[in-house]
Amino acid sequence: MSGSVLAVDIGGTKFAVALVGREGEILRVRRTATPPGGDAHTLWRTLDSLIDALLTEPAEIEGVGVGCGGPMTWPEGEVSPINMPGWRAFPLRARLAERFPGVPVRVHNDAVCLAVAEHWRGAGRGSENMLGMVVSTGVGGGLVLGGRLIDGGSGNAGHVGHVVVEPGGPVCGCGARGCLEAVARGPALAAWALGRGWQPGSAVRDVPDGEAAPYVEAATASGRQLALDAAAGDRLALAAMDRAGRALGLAVAAAVNLCDLDLVTVGGGLSQAGRLLFDPLEATLGEHTRMGFARRARVVPAALGQDAGLVGAAALVLAESRYWSH
Amino acid sequence: MSGSVLAVDIGGTKFAVALVGREGEILRVRRTATPPGGDAHTLWRTLDSLIDALLTEPAEIEGVGVGCGGPMTWPEGEVSPINMPGWRAFPLRARLAERFPGVPVRVHNDAVCLAVAEHWRGAGRGSENMLGMVVSTGVGGGLVLGGRLIDGGSGNAGHVGHVVVEPGGPVCGCGARGCLEAVARGPALAAWALGRGWQPGSAVRDVPDGEAAPYVEAATASGRQLALDAAAGDRLALAAMDRAGRALGLAVAAAVNLCDLDLVTVGGGLSQAGRLLFDPLEATLGEHTRMGFARRARVVPAALGQDAGLVGAAALVLAESRYWSH
Repeated sequence: MSGSVLAVDIGGTKFAVALVGREGEILRVRRTATPPGGDAHTLWRTLDSLIDALLTEPAEIEGVGVGCGGPMTWPEGEVSPINMPGWRAFPLRARLAERFPGVPVRVHNDAVCLAVAEHWRGAGRGSENMLGMVVSTGVGGGLVLGGRLIDGGSGNAGHVGHVVVEPGGPVCGCGARGCLEAVARGPALAAWALGRGWQPGSAVRDVPDGEAAPYVEAATASGRQLALDAAAGDRLALAAMDRAGRALGLAVAAAVNLCDLDLVTVGGGLSQAGRLLFDPLEATLGEHTRMGFARRARVVPAALGQDAGLVGAAALVLAESRYWSH
Repeated sequence: MSGSVLAVDIGGTKFAVALVGREGEILRVRRTATPPGGDAHTLWRTLDSLIDALLTEPAEIEGVGVGCGGPMTWPEGEVSPINMPGWRAFPLRARLAERFPGVPVRVHNDAVCLAVAEHWRGAGRGSENMLGMVVSTGVGGGLVLGGRLIDGGSGNAGHVGHVVVEPGGPVCGCGARGCLEAVARGPALAAWALGRGWQPGSAVRDVPDGEAAPYVEAATASGRQLALDAAAGDRLALAAMDRAGRALGLAVAAAVNLCDLDLVTVGGGLSQAGRLLFDPLEATLGEHTRMGFARRARVVPAALGQDAGLVGAAALVLAESRYWSH
């Protein structure tokens, strides 16, 4: 198995590692649950062992690409994932570079990797100017402009979740008021609906089905339940989807007008709601993209499933001319 | 005079042409008033004659850079400036290319040229990730990311004036509601203050002084008068500046969070209000850029004066590796 890249996807619920071929195909993959409450050493050992389990045969590794929850220093790759308190300024890139000397080891934000994956091999193929979004327990994204990943000054470009959509609105995890994420992330939407009398599951019960729904690991049960109830016609769940769609529409419009985008892809648990989310999103986007150039922008569901993070991480190495600037 | 570039700045009130040297220095300049209500032929003759008046000595023109009001097709350079009805789909680039065969002729949005000028030779020097804004009769801008001008899919990146800052707010010229431009452009602010009882000039009279204040040609008397009255302590004029500053702060925060910017430059008539505008702008920006990476972004006044448009237009040719992608 020569000429492949090791891809690593570090999330709050799951670690995944894979060997990825030149065209982005997953050759072999291993997953494990993130050790809850693990300290820095435990988390590293879990990852290190998972890589051992993947590399049971000799493999020529040409490079390592990593997607990890933020914040992090970039391109240094010292990570402090919000939902993994055991890693604070953990030198993830350096540790992987020790294990894989002589090849590039590149770490980027997990939402950025999802956007890269959609651009490289998913719903964004052929677009030169797109925003790839993920709407789940948080709202993140990545920007591709002029056919290249935009990093911004500190590797943090794409934080569309912190565009203000409701001035004076609910407080966000970041401390500001009225961010898109504060309104449209699954738990916030569920709380909003509960506060108005929503009875979760009264329309239809969410039974985990064991199937690998796209990004399912990042979706909250409450957000999924809300989407299911909305699909079953629950009035409050529908109102919550409308609220999320309108908030997303305002933030997407800001990105389209500011960056002259062709395309926006939306993935993550909440996007599973389909037209119930995309209809109000597109209506609001249409109201706020009235100039000729902005009208062409389309919003589509993300196309890749649970392997998207791995594909995007691999692209940091396999398609570096487009996705790695440093 | 060998090795210089012809720069052209086409505005609703004024045409300017200049010979610009390699470092962005203006070697010679000619200006004339835009013929009011001029048809396509009259407008072209005015520009053509102005170039004649500039090129009285033989000059080796290495290229032509043009800034013009939008909209336009890009990079084709067929222009339809909103405030010059005589030009609709006028082939400005093609006509200049006929006059200057064999050298590059490049046309871009006037607000983009101002941003390029600030990045190349003004307040944005050294920043790799900036938004250059102009707040005047309209609100426009240009984006530089990773050290390069971002064009977007149709040459329209930088339209920060159409980020929504007041959902359900006033109707914008573009047809949408609550755009930054609908709130913060000079005439909108003046109308807002007048509707609340502002008596223009009761605090201090705006006497045109003939001095070349930066971007003065683009500022409206009403916006300038508002700034003067605010400086003199007029309560309603101050409230208008506060309103503009807060709206600008929300849109700038969206750009900073989405694009991970180091710097935002603000020019145009309204920026003459100084601290009265920048204080509420910075306060609002601070409230909405709470993540570590976003806190570093600074907002500064544009540094270049009335020649900025010419300097930016020249840079499309003189510094093409950074400012011309096509």
